[in-house]
Amino acid sequence: MNFDGITVPRTLVPHNYLQLALAAQRGRQRQVKELLEKRKLPEHGWRDEEIEQLVHQLAALDSNNFTHNVGLGEREARIACKLVARRHYNFGHGIGRSGDLLEAQPKAAGSTLMANLTNAMLLDLLHMLGLQSCHGCFLVPLATGMTLTLCLQALRKRRPNARYVLWSRIDQKSCFKAITAAGLEPIVIPHVVLKEEHALATDCQKFEQRIQELGAHNILCLYSTTSCFAPRNCDNIVELAKLAKRESVPHLVNNAYGLQCEAIISQLEKAQRVGRIDYFVQSTDKNLMVPVGGAIVASSDAQLLEQLASSYAGRASSSQTLDVFMTLLSLGRNGYQMLLRERQQNFEYLKQRLQQFAAEHNEIVPQCKNNPISLALTLSTLNSEHNEADNSITQLGAMLHARGVSGVRVVNVGQTKSIDGHEFKHFGSHRELLQTPYLTVAAALGVHRPEIDKFFVILDKCWTQFKKTSA
Amino acid sequence: MNFDGITVPRTLVPHNYLQLALAAQRGRQRQVKELLEKRKLPEHGWRDEEIEQLVHQLAALDSNNFTHNVGLGEREARIACKLVARRHYNFGHGIGRSGDLLEAQPKAAGSTLMANLTNAMLLDLLHMLGLQSCHGCFLVPLATGMTLTLCLQALRKRRPNARYVLWSRIDQKSCFKAITAAGLEPIVIPHVVLKEEHALATDCQKFEQRIQELGAHNILCLYSTTSCFAPRNCDNIVELAKLAKRESVPHLVNNAYGLQCEAIISQLEKAQRVGRIDYFVQSTDKNLMVPVGGAIVASSDAQLLEQLASSYAGRASSSQTLDVFMTLLSLGRNGYQMLLRERQQNFEYLKQRLQQFAAEHNEIVPQCKNNPISLALTLSTLNSEHNEADNSITQLGAMLHARGVSGVRVVNVGQTKSIDGHEFKHFGSHRELLQTPYLTVAAALGVHRPEIDKFFVILDKCWTQFKKTSA
Amino acid sequence: MNFDGITVPRTLVPHNYLQLALAAQRGRQRQVKELLEKRKLPEHGWRDEEIEQLVHQLAALDSNNFTHNVGLGEREARIACKLVARRHYNFGHGIGRSGDLLEAQPKAAGSTLMANLTNAMLLDLLHMLGLQSCHGCFLVPLATGMTLTLCLQALRKRRPNARYVLWSRIDQKSCFKAITAAGLEPIVIPHVVLKEEHALATDCQKFEQRIQELGAHNILCLYSTTSCFAPRNCDNIVELAKLAKRESVPHLVNNAYGLQCEAIISQLEKAQRVGRIDYFVQSTDKNLMVPVGGAIVASSDAQLLEQLASSYAGRASSSQTLDVFMTLLSLGRNGYQMLLRERQQNFEYLKQRLQQFAAEHNEIVPQCKNNPISLALTLSTLNSEHNEADNSITQLGAMLHARGVSGVRVVNVGQTKSIDGHEFKHFGSHRELLQTPYLTVAAALGVHRPEIDKFFVILDKCWTQFKKTSA
Amino acid sequence: MNFDGITVPRTLVPHNYLQLALAAQRGRQRQVKELLEKRKLPEHGWRDEEIEQLVHQLAALDSNNFTHNVGLGEREARIACKLVARRHYNFGHGIGRSGDLLEAQPKAAGSTLMANLTNAMLLDLLHMLGLQSCHGCFLVPLATGMTLTLCLQALRKRRPNARYVLWSRIDQKSCFKAITAAGLEPIVIPHVVLKEEHALATDCQKFEQRIQELGAHNILCLYSTTSCFAPRNCDNIVELAKLAKRESVPHLVNNAYGLQCEAIISQLEKAQRVGRIDYFVQSTDKNLMVPVGGAIVASSDAQLLEQLASSYAGRASSSQTLDVFMTLLSLGRNGYQMLLRERQQNFEYLKQRLQQFAAEHNEIVPQCKNNPISLALTLSTLNSEHNEADNSITQLGAMLHARGVSGVRVVNVGQTKSIDGHEFKHFGSHRELLQTPYLTVAAALGVHRPEIDKFFVILDKCWTQFKKTSA
Repeated sequence: MNFDGITVPRTLVPHNYLQLALAAQRGRQRQVKELLEKRKLPEHGWRDEEIEQLVHQLAALDSNNFTHNVGLGEREARIACKLVARRHYNFGHGIGRSGDLLEAQPKAAGSTLMANLTNAMLLDLLHMLGLQSCHGCFLVPLATGMTLTLCLQALRKRRPNARYVLWSRIDQKSCFKAITAAGLEPIVIPHVVLKEEHALATDCQKFEQRIQELGAHNILCLYSTTSCFAPRNCDNIVELAKLAKRESVPHLVNNAYGLQCEAIISQLEKAQRVGRIDYFVQSTDKNLMVPVGGAIVASSDAQLLEQLASSYAGRASSSQTLDVFMTLLSLGRNGYQMLLRERQQNFEYLKQRLQQFAAEHNEIVPQCKNNPISLALTLSTLNSEHNEADNSITQLGAMLHARGVSGVRVVNVGQTKSIDGHEFKHFGSHRELLQTPYLTVAAALGVHRPEIDKFFVILDKCWTQFKKTSA
Repeated sequence: MNFDGITVPRTLVPHNYLQLALAAQRGRQRQVKELLEKRKLPEHGWRDEEIEQLVHQLAALDSNNFTHNVGLGEREARIACKLVARRHYNFGHGIGRSGDLLEAQPKAAGSTLMANLTNAMLLDLLHMLGLQSCHGCFLVPLATGMTLTLCLQALRKRRPNARYVLWSRIDQKSCFKAITAAGLEPIVIPHVVLKEEHALATDCQKFEQRIQELGAHNILCLYSTTSCFAPRNCDNIVELAKLAKRESVPHLVNNAYGLQCEAIISQLEKAQRVGRIDYFVQSTDKNLMVPVGGAIVASSDAQLLEQLASSYAGRASSSQTLDVFMTLLSLGRNGYQMLLRERQQNFEYLKQRLQQFAAEHNEIVPQCKNNPISLALTLSTLNSEHNEADNSITQLGAMLHARGVSGVRVVNVGQTKSIDGHEFKHFGSHRELLQTPYLTVAAALGVHRPEIDKFFVILDKCWTQFKKTSA
Repeated sequence: MNFDGITVPRTLVPHNYLQLALAAQRGRQRQVKELLEKRKLPEHGWRDEEIEQLVHQLAALDSNNFTHNVGLGEREARIACKLVARRHYNFGHGIGRSGDLLEAQPKAAGSTLMANLTNAMLLDLLHMLGLQSCHGCFLVPLATGMTLTLCLQALRKRRPNARYVLWSRIDQKSCFKAITAAGLEPIVIPHVVLKEEHALATDCQKFEQRIQELGAHNILCLYSTTSCFAPRNCDNIVELAKLAKRESVPHLVNNAYGLQCEAIISQLEKAQRVGRIDYFVQSTDKNLMVPVGGAIVASSDAQLLEQLASSYAGRASSSQTLDVFMTLLSLGRNGYQMLLRERQQNFEYLKQRLQQFAAEHNEIVPQCKNNPISLALTLSTLNSEHNEADNSITQLGAMLHARGVSGVRVVNVGQTKSIDGHEFKHFGSHRELLQTPYLTVAAALGVHRPEIDKFFVILDKCWTQFKKTSA
Repeated sequence: MNFDGITVPRTLVPHNYLQLALAAQRGRQRQVKELLEKRKLPEHGWRDEEIEQLVHQLAALDSNNFTHNVGLGEREARIACKLVARRHYNFGHGIGRSGDLLEAQPKAAGSTLMANLTNAMLLDLLHMLGLQSCHGCFLVPLATGMTLTLCLQALRKRRPNARYVLWSRIDQKSCFKAITAAGLEPIVIPHVVLKEEHALATDCQKFEQRIQELGAHNILCLYSTTSCFAPRNCDNIVELAKLAKRESVPHLVNNAYGLQCEAIISQLEKAQRVGRIDYFVQSTDKNLMVPVGGAIVASSDAQLLEQLASSYAGRASSSQTLDVFMTLLSLGRNGYQMLLRERQQNFEYLKQRLQQFAAEHNEIVPQCKNNPISLALTLSTLNSEHNEADNSITQLGAMLHARGVSGVRVVNVGQTKSIDGHEFKHFGSHRELLQTPYLTVAAALGVHRPEIDKFFVILDKCWTQFKKTSA
């Protein structure tokens, strides 16, 4: 609703006051018009009330919110609990249409509009970040891992007989499970260990070699990862993309939290230009600071995206879309760029503080040139005193955790893990042989400098205490 | 927080007033204690403020809401937009742990607790409804179709060489896509047409015959559907379950909106007792009146459920869990039973009105003994006047839609549809040969009697107008 | 904002889906147009989202919500706490303009509009209830007692030398304090005791006599009360109004919770037609089920209302207006009439149950023909057993209270209370001499039948226990 | 509710995760304990969810929110509209008890607690600001003007025969109406014009002279004002307080928006120490950035406050209390001090920019040493060109307003206004004779520097345009 076409009686409000107030509304209307017509991320973030007003207006376009609706189907988006309706702004119909995430939903013009607008803003965001070659993207209301599975399934429809996935090892369960969930055969490619830097790098030669061994036509795709825990580096996606192109093998990139990082973005863009990437996938939670549960899949090939969208069996939740929609409007280009800058500065700060700490304690911070988010710190001096009970180094992690530090990982030597029948030695370290335990920390989007300061105070205390108790 | 251990000064409130008020709180506390300790759906629905209080308390147990949290990981559940945080009650961490939906999330004790409590209440609900053989269930934050895909993928891990899925035809895209998404081979089993009743029934003999032809070991599973559009009946799941047991072939049941219906439930329970069902899957939106996007997967075998849960690659959204959690608390056993009763009565009413309408217009309402939700009405008298332009009968649907009626489907003869390379004749009718067009309506959970009355007013108008304009 | 004048691209949503959705919005727009142009209480209640949408749109008309606002005054309605802003829908400017509640506020076109619209709907409500002679009314964001003070102050501006207020005794502190707060002299007029009915009635003769004694020109006004606790009856406002007219003395009626009662309303209307009432005042909380803190002042004389409005020194809170605005839209005429009917039925039910209880326990329910809300029950049989400790009868009230019964008053004999220098014997009983203690209960707007049933269960238990312990 | 005394089963959440989470809750609990036991403004602001949790817990202590409540009174705080209940966090009972704002409300232990806690925090705030002599204060849910009336009424109860109020002129309607509303006689004391500074100062001699003329016993009180529009200065409250003490006449101070300003606070404190102030009153909206509608009345005499509280006839809205309660918790001491500092800096900035503007345009910024909030700028050069139509200078105000600038007042010569029978010449200028028009601007709490910058851009444009069009 609005005040157009309504003759507001002067007994309700003096004409001149109202005129001034209505004039002030025109700015809002222009803002909405521009958003809908240009489909770009707004320059400046919107205010909460402006966002909610638009969201309410969109929800009103869904049939479950029509006053006169008569629902005689099996799915009418009735919502039993008022609190639930309220938290979804009365959206109930989800997005997509049986079996296609991108198809318009006839019962839900508003949800459809919101979903498409969100995808358009996401594309604009990718372009702004430097991913000019990206021709399309959309939000999938699934975890990143599941979205990677979806990508593999979509690729399989085009290469039904290829069953191998060449995967540059990364020790996160869901990355690996994404392959087995799809019923495909993972081929693990170990890393090259860079002695000097104490870091890990993609073994591109091994990839090539495996393609020769298995036959390119039997390989569903190469599967690389950008953002990861140090001392693993971002995969050499440029070389892998070239290889993929050369061998005509699809290439899937897990860019989990890489959008927040300029260096990774420029690698991605380059890889797309000089080589081949079929899909690259990123989490919404890590890159856009929304609750866990969504991913953005992007590609330079619009048709590939359509195929992917039509592999989603069913209508999907619109909750993740709503979160991203509101967040993008709330941040605007400026807001997001400010977050990026802050993260960059905090990463540099964290690195410098960590190197200083390492120097003081005779430890090392591995030099991961291609890991601009995560940092590692060796725990060799702690470990040497604990020969009899290797496991106890993980106590350090527990001590930090108990003091409110979350996200620090202590990686110990000798952990073996079996996932879906595949055994990983030294699990957590991304490598076959680990000699020195270490911990990792990250400066991710949204981290605040006082957190970093507080971390070192706590680390210092725990370090001292750990040494004391283990002495 | 609460008032225990706090000495509230008398200058703030007289002691006797406070004591009375605190006594009144004990009821709330007991309610929560009972919920957590017994893990049952409450007898009576909770009030909104009681629900929200618990939800807030649970959210406070997640590390992102600790006042002193220092987040140095790559995923710390920071939420950029206040509106988003608010609609999620500050939950941000999702549920599960990399690659297992049922694993506890160390950073999110509250989310974990909520998810497990929701699953426990869902199980209690299933038992209350009569599914006593069900030994476990859990909510999957995915569309029903995608959840069916997940089931197929989990089954494949146990039968890696079986690739056929024997599927009793149902003309809904996502049911079929659930198979192709998993990279499996669908074998379509057509229905037996019951001449007298004008209805469709499962061709169990054909199932058996196909098993023989293809070899039981090559068959991943039988895949049947309960709730569906008339004149298709609920599949004969009891006979299929017996067959599955006899042949040692898994059996997957799509029970999309069958929880709302006693007759289907009793079939399911019988099938589980006398035969074999590995998983049965139902939508949360249709059965619990929450927004689209979740499914409940249930089984009489706890291990099967664990395998399924560990096939989900990644951490999942907790938004669907929150919706179901709040809805179950809000309804309670009483509330849900009342909804069931109302639906049953409204179905009988809709049927009677439809039969009356049919009698007045020389049409037929097919007798689907095993379809207690959906009803069909032939459109033969409308059709006969439109020989030249078959398609125009769908205009009736558009007319109804334009007047606010949603959910009515007009099924015309001769529609062919190709899905992932498979061609379906007379798509929408679930059969190979359709001679008379028809429409379907449903009395689903939450439908109101005034809607039914209004529907017949509108149908009558549209029918008359359609006849007039096509004369 | 709305979608007019925006060319929504077809890539966002198919044209035909959008058109249908936009058509559905027109109903909402019509609803708003009708409200603003006709300024009547809507026939049917609005849905929550419709109410909130309008409220948000109105708030957007206030200058503190203009995007480009530059605030250089001392009062710019900035709101420090987001939670506070949210609960006020960003309204901050209050209503009225320095010293006049009804004047438009230049900085707040939206608040002004809402306030005037609320007053217009209230007037329509009064008319609907049968108060046709009422020519105007407005909401005062003050307690009823303070609003009565405001009325007395406004009357004093016209009769600066009159200092006596002739007040028909009612034992509620704030009714009396309303006089002393204004610095006026109360003249208490005791009641006639109706022996047979055990009830109290207005002593109109005494009123007349006092006017003669004091001189009409010295009397600021007659001050009567309608709704009250039994066995006091509603004052004989028709006779008092006639007297006021005859003697040219203003007449102020405290109609605290009388709007909810047809019988009182018809008395009020008659009194206005045949006699004189200057102002009649009613609580918003009791009559409209909003939080405590507002009153509606009404009159058949528009000028009197203007004088009253301009006696409010300062700008007032708009919180009460917002509550009433939303409640009226939410209920609509139908909703309010349903509440009235239910109350009437519940009163009859309560009366019948109470009479039955009285008969069983040898007690009496006084016959208050002119009290259609409150009922009394003598406690003579309880009292006789407690000669030694009169006070202990109030224990019954405490026992009821401790079991969750609120609102029951136990009136004991012999309580004396001094208010602002005036002494009231048997305070609580509205009379000079009370011999039998009693309790009162009321069937007010919003009471539910199960509450009444539960009350009698508890009363019965407490009664028995009281007898036992005092035996 | 909380998790104490509940044995959370390990199937719901692992014991160690839960323990960590519960430990984190203890901080919250400590925070609440400290608040309730010490009753001080917290050092640091609370987070939104912490505030809401406490508010919800308090509301749960009110009887209308007891699950088992049986309401048989005439006022049971039932709330008809869910939206209204929600915005009040289910508070419905208001504060106070018939006729006493500070009395505990038996039906509402939670509201009572919140109100007393709010008043305690306000007192702590006053002390923190430097008002050490202040012995008590409370929030009155009334406009400042109405609260001043309430003070006058309370004073009258102690001095029933005194009818004159000696009032240092300030041209704001509600300040004056506060006197007439109470039925008292205002004696206007004009200002001394300070020639050099172009500013106005309190004429203490005239006060003294009037006391002699009228007789101290006939004077209800002296009535001064601190915060005001330049070029009026804050009244010389120290001298007036001395005079009041000397003559044994009460002294009422309107400190409308003086809490935000250190200079005024120190005057107030000094005045209380060396002289007499009975009550001083300040707005909540202007000093605490909450919506309009509340005032804080403070005194060094606790008994005086009790008398005042017991003059409020009726139970009052708790909405204003809730706003202030949440705002104080949200800001904390630190937050408020930061706001004060920013205001101070912005005032200096505004002054400097205004002086610069004045110098460039041959205008003057009067030197009001005792007005640390508001600033004036003469408009002599604009005026000289408009001899024929004096009024037109107000056009400048309209031009600014139309461009989004609110709060600027243009004061023209020759405006006469009559309020309640008293005539004020040159109304708006606080003086008998005004020769040069001027405008005023203020740097109030919450103003942002960019607003000031934007103001000068707009002022410059309007100034130029005004000169052009009037040339």
